[in-house]
Order: sequence, then C-alpha cells, then structure tokens
Amino acid sequence: MTAHIVEKGEFAGWRYWPGDPFEQTAGPFFFKQEDGLALCAFRVERKHVNGMGSVHGGCLMSFADFALFGIAHEHLAPSGYGVTVAFTSEFLRGASVGDYIEARGEVLRAGRSLIFVRGVITAEGEPCLNFSGTIKRVRQS
Amino acid sequence: MTAHIVEKGEFAGWRYWPGDPFEQTAGPFFFKQEDGLALCAFRVERKHVNGMGSVHGGCLMSFADFALFGIAHEHLAPSGYGVTVAFTSEFLRGASVGDYIEARGEVLRAGRSLIFVRGVITAEGEPCLNFSGTIKRVRQS
Amino acid sequence: MTAHIVEKGEFAGWRYWPGDPFEQTAGPFFFKQEDGLALCAFRVERKHVNGMGSVHGGCLMSFADFALFGIAHEHLAPSGYGVTVAFTSEFLRGASVGDYIEARGEVLRAGRSLIFVRGVITAEGEPCLNFSGTIKRVRQS
Amino acid sequence: MTAHIVEKGEFAGWRYWPGDPFEQTAGPFFFKQEDGLALCAFRVERKHVNGMGSVHGGCLMSFADFALFGIAHEHLAPSGYGVTVAFTSEFLRGASVGDYIEARGEVLRAGRSLIFVRGVITAEGEPCLNFSGTIKRVRQS
Repeated sequence: MTAHIVEKGEFAGWRYWPGDPFEQTAGPFFFKQEDGLALCAFRVERKHVNGMGSVHGGCLMSFADFALFGIAHEHLAPSGYGVTVAFTSEFLRGASVGDYIEARGEVLRAGRSLIFVRGVITAEGEPCLNFSGTIKRVRQS
Repeated sequence: MTAHIVEKGEFAGWRYWPGDPFEQTAGPFFFKQEDGLALCAFRVERKHVNGMGSVHGGCLMSFADFALFGIAHEHLAPSGYGVTVAFTSEFLRGASVGDYIEARGEVLRAGRSLIFVRGVITAEGEPCLNFSGTIKRVRQS
Repeated sequence: MTAHIVEKGEFAGWRYWPGDPFEQTAGPFFFKQEDGLALCAFRVERKHVNGMGSVHGGCLMSFADFALFGIAHEHLAPSGYGVTVAFTSEFLRGASVGDYIEARGEVLRAGRSLIFVRGVITAEGEPCLNFSGTIKRVRQS
Repeated sequence: MTAHIVEKGEFAGWRYWPGDPFEQTAGPFFFKQEDGLALCAFRVERKHVNGMGSVHGGCLMSFADFALFGIAHEHLAPSGYGVTVAFTSEFLRGASVGDYIEARGEVLRAGRSLIFVRGVITAEGEPCLNFSGTIKRVRQS
C-alpha cells in the first residue's frame, strides 16, 4: 500500500494511506518519523466523538491500531506486512473536539513471527489511552 | 441519548443512535433485543475495510465497544450511563465486504461501580473477534 | 511431560503434572476430561490467599494459565506443545479458603501457529475470573 | 499489612510481606524504593519454573500483580488499599533458574476510584513480560 504525503495544513509533510478505506473513514490518521521516532497524530473533529462530546473509545482504538503499525514499521518494511492478533487498552481520560491527539510507543520485541508493541495516546499532552498490541507477520508468497 | 428505529432495509426495526457521531462514522451499527438477548449487527461496506480488503481491526473494535453497551444496557438503563475503562480483544479471522457481522455476549458481573462484559463477534456465523470490556458507571448528578 | 493420576482424596482420578515445579508450588492444579469437556480445578488452601484472606490474583492467573492448556490440549497433543504469548483477565469476585475453584472454557480458533482460548473461573459456582489467552505453537525439532 | 525488611542475603534492605501467604508461596517477591522509583525483584529458583525449565507464566503474572501495588503504592498509602480488577500481559521472552527478575513501571493515572498502571518485567535486563493493570480503590470503613 502506498503512502501519500499531506501537502498542506496542520499535517503538511506527514504520511497517510488513502488506500486503506477505514483509516480514512475513522481518521484520517497521520504518521511521520522524527529523529528515528515514529509519531502518529490527528486532530479531533465532530465526527470522532460520542454522544457525550468526548472522543469515542472506538476512534481511539482505531487510531491505536493504526499506531501499532507506525511504531513497528521498521520491523515490517520493506518486504513484509502484518496483522493485529491481540490488542488491549485502558481508557485514562477523555478528549474533546479540537484536541491534538498523538500516539508514541515502542517495540518491546520483534520475533520471527510476532511483534510486541506498547504505546500511549495523549490528548493535548495528557495520557488518554494506554495500549498494547501483538502483530503477527504475514509472509508474502 | 435517544435511540431511533431503522424504518426500512435489512435492519428495519433495529435501533441506532444518530446522536453519537462516531458510531455513524464508523458504522452505523444496529441493536435489538430478541427473546431477552441483546443483538448488535452491521453489514460490511467498502468504508469498513483495510488496504487488504478485510474489515479493519479498528472497525471491529469500534463495533465491539458499541456492543459492550448493548450487552450491558439493562444494567445501565434507565437512569445511569457508563464509560469503557478497559478493553481487550483477540482477532480470530478476517471478514469481507458484504459479510453480516454480529456481536453477542454476556454480563459476567454488574457491581456497584463496574460492569464486566465479554462477547464474540462473528462474520457470517464464524467467530472473528473475541472481546472483553469493563464499564464504569457514571452517576448523573 | 508426563501426567500423573491422583490416587485418592477429593481429586482422585484427575490428572496433574508433578514435572512442572511452579504448578506444584502455586497449586497443585488438577485436570480431567468429562464428556469431551476439559475441566480444571483446585480447592483453596491458606497458601493461596492474600493478606485479606481472599485468593490471590496471581494464584487465579496461574491457575488460568494452567487451564489455557487444559482447554486447548486436544489441539496441542500429541506431538506439539505451546507457550502463552498473551493473557488478559478481569477479576469479578473474591474467593476464600475452602472454596472449590473450577475453570471451563473453549478454543475460539486453532490456527496453524496460534490458538485462541477463553474461559471463566468460578468459585463455588460463582464467576470470579474472566480470562483469554493466546498460545503459540512450538514445533519440536 | 506490615512490611518486613530482609535482613541478609542478596535482597538485604528490601521489603516483603510475610502476611500475604501466596506471595510467599509463589515468591517471595521483594520491593524497595530507589530515588523515588519503585523496584520489585526476585531471583528465579527451581520452584518458579515450568516443565521446560523456563519461569512459569503464572509466576511472572503473580510477580506482576505484586508489582502493580509496588508501583502504585504512593497512591494507595497510607489509609487506603486496592484490588486488581483487570490485568493484561504479553510474554516476550523466557527466563531461567538463576536469573535476576525485576519489574519497573509507572502510574498512568490515579483517579478517585481507579488507578491505571503499566510496567515491564526484565530478566537479566532483557524484557520478558509487558503488563498493565487496573486497581480499584477499596475504602476502609
């Protein structure tokens, strides 16, 4: 799947994947590398919130699932890809329309078949979701 | 938040919540009660899939988060509501455009402050996501 | 690892694994098959409880980890074995010295490399731990 | 529950809780504070391993459950205590008899009723278990 580069606006220079329909539906979510660190981000719009005006848990988990692959991308590229096999999260705090949401994390272990990732999503710098995910490598034949 | 009733089509008679923006963004997802059992469902469209044509993990987790509240609704209504505080899932199998997706589950314990729910999402009857969630009651003042 | 059969007492006829030191330390935990169903059980002794007199969370999780393999044993035997790669649980209720603790569950999917299991531990018939685990097959060379 | 201080040996000066029977059964596990950081540790003995000679998953999870409270202790003491309500973990690597096992982590949020903790257990400095736990405060009456 080909990454595109955002051309203007707040996320100019960040990458996104228009070939992934649900990431556009639920996001769009953005990715870049900065000093060797993977950053994922988006800004909350009305479409992302629940009936109480707080970012929907499903939106945060969709973004976290996107972030798993951002964080692990150096262990997947260029020849392979992966699928999430397990995901856990705790909801620490709400986030509102207009908030800047960012995910950072680390690969705890990249094995031959499984990659273990953990991270934290922040809203305006405050932790709002803790997450861990297990990615299974899929070999291309 | 007020439930609306679907008027026609495949989900005629099911309830949905247009007042929850992200559920419309990522779904829409539908709910009904049948013989005392909570059923949640939707049918996969192109907007729900990832770059490989399989339902996006974030979509399934968004639907599971919706289903937590469907499964627990009798323990929340009428005066209270709740927020997800922890969520875990395992991805068992993929699902494709056109598949009928359904979630069923059970409340394992409804305490004074926390409600514990587990469930399974199926695609055309085959298990595709196992999930558990912890809901914290929020008291209205 | 060879299973032994309990010869007398409450668990006469159940199997256990004296070749697994920690299962003897934290347990011992017992296993049998009944009408094609895997049952795992033990009875709470003083050594299993925490400072408040309730079964320690670590004891329940150790037993749940034992139960994962009991529940999945038909998918592992006879030539292969496995290791837990991910585990999640929610604590529903306490249990006390003298309680009969039992785990039951099901294999949600047994794939070529991963086996997904979920189950519930009960104390005197009441749910006390909800758990899910992912087992990775290890091929013997 | 009263903490005791280890008087001699490798863990001299560390605290432990003989009033918690299962922590002695599965451990003993040790705790100290160093420069404001909570450290939990033990050294692997034969009683802690499984049939393959690797630390049993249940042992690591028992230790992680102990570590949750070590990491959160400043948010619990002096008047309150807590119980684990949810726990998740991923197994990154094995550990053997003789290995020094240590847990470190952080409180991601300490709310009025729930405390969210995450941490990593290392064996001889290498990550072997990633864990997250949710503690519910219990008010003393």
